[in-house]
Amino acid sequence: MFPKDHVYKTVEITGTSSTTEEAAIQNAVAKASQSVRNMRWFQVVETRGAIDEGKVTQWQVTLKIGFTLETPE
Amino acid sequence: MFPKDHVYKTVEITGTSSTTEEAAIQNAVAKASQSVRNMRWFQVVETRGAIDEGKVTQWQVTLKIGFTLETPE
Amino acid sequence: MFPKDHVYKTVEITGTSSTTEEAAIQNAVAKASQSVRNMRWFQVVETRGAIDEGKVTQWQVTLKIGFTLETPE
Amino acid sequence: MFPKDHVYKTVEITGTSSTTEEAAIQNAVAKASQSVRNMRWFQVVETRGAIDEGKVTQWQVTLKIGFTLETPE
Amino acid sequence: MFPKDHVYKTVEITGTSSTTEEAAIQNAVAKASQSVRNMRWFQVVETRGAIDEGKVTQWQVTLKIGFTLETPE
Amino acid sequence: MFPKDHVYKTVEITGTSSTTEEAAIQNAVAKASQSVRNMRWFQVVETRGAIDEGKVTQWQVTLKIGFTLETPE
Amino acid sequence: MFPKDHVYKTVEITGTSSTTEEAAIQNAVAKASQSVRNMRWFQVVETRGAIDEGKVTQWQVTLKIGFTLETPE
Amino acid sequence: MFPKDHVYKTVEITGTSSTTEEAAIQNAVAKASQSVRNMRWFQVVETRGAIDEGKVTQWQVTLKIGFTLETPE
Amino acid sequence: MFPKDHVYKTVEITGTSSTTEEAAIQNAVAKASQSVRNMRWFQVVETRGAIDEGKVTQWQVTLKIGFTLETPE
Amino acid sequence: MFPKDHVYKTVEITGTSSTTEEAAIQNAVAKASQSVRNMRWFQVVETRGAIDEGKVTQWQVTLKIGFTLETPE
Amino acid sequence: MFPKDHVYKTVEITGTSSTTEEAAIQNAVAKASQSVRNMRWFQVVETRGAIDEGKVTQWQVTLKIGFTLETPE
Amino acid sequence: MFPKDHVYKTVEITGTSSTTEEAAIQNAVAKASQSVRNMRWFQVVETRGAIDEGKVTQWQVTLKIGFTLETPE
Repeated sequence: MFPKDHVYKTVEITGTSSTTEEAAIQNAVAKASQSVRNMRWFQVVETRGAIDEGKVTQWQVTLKIGFTLETPE
Repeated sequence: MFPKDHVYKTVEITGTSSTTEEAAIQNAVAKASQSVRNMRWFQVVETRGAIDEGKVTQWQVTLKIGFTLETPE
Repeated sequence: MFPKDHVYKTVEITGTSSTTEEAAIQNAVAKASQSVRNMRWFQVVETRGAIDEGKVTQWQVTLKIGFTLETPE
Repeated sequence: MFPKDHVYKTVEITGTSSTTEEAAIQNAVAKASQSVRNMRWFQVVETRGAIDEGKVTQWQVTLKIGFTLETPE
Repeated sequence: MFPKDHVYKTVEITGTSSTTEEAAIQNAVAKASQSVRNMRWFQVVETRGAIDEGKVTQWQVTLKIGFTLETPE
Repeated sequence: MFPKDHVYKTVEITGTSSTTEEAAIQNAVAKASQSVRNMRWFQVVETRGAIDEGKVTQWQVTLKIGFTLETPE
Repeated sequence: MFPKDHVYKTVEITGTSSTTEEAAIQNAVAKASQSVRNMRWFQVVETRGAIDEGKVTQWQVTLKIGFTLETPE
Repeated sequence: MFPKDHVYKTVEITGTSSTTEEAAIQNAVAKASQSVRNMRWFQVVETRGAIDEGKVTQWQVTLKIGFTLETPE
Repeated sequence: MFPKDHVYKTVEITGTSSTTEEAAIQNAVAKASQSVRNMRWFQVVETRGAIDEGKVTQWQVTLKIGFTLETPE
Repeated sequence: MFPKDHVYKTVEITGTSSTTEEAAIQNAVAKASQSVRNMRWFQVVETRGAIDEGKVTQWQVTLKIGFTLETPE
Repeated sequence: MFPKDHVYKTVEITGTSSTTEEAAIQNAVAKASQSVRNMRWFQVVETRGAIDEGKVTQWQVTLKIGFTLETPE
Repeated sequence: MFPKDHVYKTVEITGTSSTTEEAAIQNAVAKASQSVRNMRWFQVVETRGAIDEGKVTQWQVTLKIGFTLETPE
């Protein structure tokens, strides 16, 4: 349960990584944390990637990230 | 019809309330109005909630809210 | 392929035009470029419009627009 | 279970109300009943609304309404 | 290919049958043909049914039916 | 915002054109206006077409069109 | 209309048959009736099957089945 | 955040009420609590209803309800 | 379970029949088997049809068909 | 109506153009016609594009294209 | 291909883990196996997680799990 | 941005692996590269798997894979 009567905002972020899907997610969350405070949850929206010479060379994971809306943004 | 050639932005906000679904929506709109001007419309995206001892104890309603994009954000 | 390990943000913008669907898209992109730098791609989410006296009098096109997230927003 | 081998038609109606979501639904059903007989069920398709000065000022609820198709329409 | 520059309308009809799914579709089309002329195609939207004592006792199939819009309806 | 407590109906219409996608939309709206009064908005549901000898020879655009439900239809 | 203020539960069941799609549905309903009482309706969720040597050799139909929730399960 | 490494199960329940949408939700939750312990959250999946003589006479709300899976069911 | 570490390809095929929905599916599978080997499963994507003089005169069923990708195609 | 008991295959193609959305569609169809015979219809699946310096610089339209499956491919 | 004419049931389970997405899936399957016999397959429905201080601190993966329905449950 | 006015084709491939989800993706891409040249990107469409004795024993990941359509296939 969320704390009483709080309000949340969701943003959509795409992280990338040349190594793994989970690294792409961690990169997205780490980068977003530089400008957004009070992040609480994420949801995977889409997993894509780039292919070069028959190998996956980049993971691209799009997340919805939710955070508490406490002060005017 | 929207005014001629205006441009709009949509944000996704989740409001919560311990009383009713509509209070959760009003809370979301009221909170968003502190930082976003010129809000024009909303659309309900998802209605969820928390349960405790066989009762709904919190409503969580996610909205898309549209507003006129008049000045650099 | 995106540049190595960059992170992107997506925003949802609705452009309008009294002339064509593509003008509505160009208006949305041009307006967003006043406040968002490093826009890279868009995706059409919805095409709607207004009707008056049996004619289309306004096009309203909603886009998702992606841009590189390089500095705290 | 529906009566044996009846046929039904579904129409899409949007009701509005300045007070509550349920009033918007009741308005849609009441208005439709002036021209459609034998309405049997509804399903909520979309809930939207208008915002003015940080408050919800209008509810707009779109319903699918099903009715028995007994006579040529 | 449709004939040059014709315009079509789609209606949503639910047919029922106590025997088979296809009988429910044929019932829907036959009933609709009493009030709609120039029907051209259909698409199955949903297949449901009623159960009684561990057996399917009724098929309910919802169709979209398209027809040529040649005269004011 | 819609006028106070009005009720709207949505119909689904497919327009066709041998020239452009927008002509197909204008054809759908113009044809519908012969039998439906007070049309207010449209939404593009699907864009299809016919191909002959490696060229698009017909555009088929399906719209939802909304109109004010003022009198028994 | 359901009886006054009853509560229903939905389960998801996949029936199979080597003969027809409808036999797969009847098998699912008959099997479920051995452990679930008061089944009221079903909805087809997905139709799949197996292929062997260019022929359909098995139908697999997934249903949602609804039943009255009268006693603690 | 959920407690560390717990596992949850989701069931789908439809509550009904002759009065309001929220009463239908409360009925679904109250009834489910008789047989399911440790319910934690719900999500509204669908809102339907019955119509009689131009009025909504029953609300039918389908929920997904999640609960902690602590003991063999 | 699929055999260890195999790879599969899915193609989308529409079969037609003037008699039944299942004949349209069998036609699609039989025709595809002339050019595709090792077909394993299918999934129904869409069921449509043609109407003439108030009767269904053709069934059109679109399938996804999966097959083992053993040799360069 | 399709010719009697024919079978069709659908492929997914993305066309691009620096000028208009319709040019991207025509490019996709023209290119596909070099390797696929008997193309009959298309459906727009997705419209995307690239942005550079606040302008749309490329249209990317993904189509499903259907063609008659007359000979082993 | 499933064994001849068997019937299957699907349940929806959410597993959590503080380490990886795949651990969350393995936790869900292991926990479900304590009360459900004859599990055969799973499908990932949703991947979410919790964030704390700019890091993913919990993975939450929702699965549909299918099992053979051999005895009254 | 794609190179100027190129055309792309998308195919749907399912890779499997007894070890991890990412191995299933790499297997799909590696196998497809034996018959398809110029692969550029992929998108995860579905993640499924097999269960045996309470453990995940096989990962099955379905991808859409896009490649440049340069020569008649």
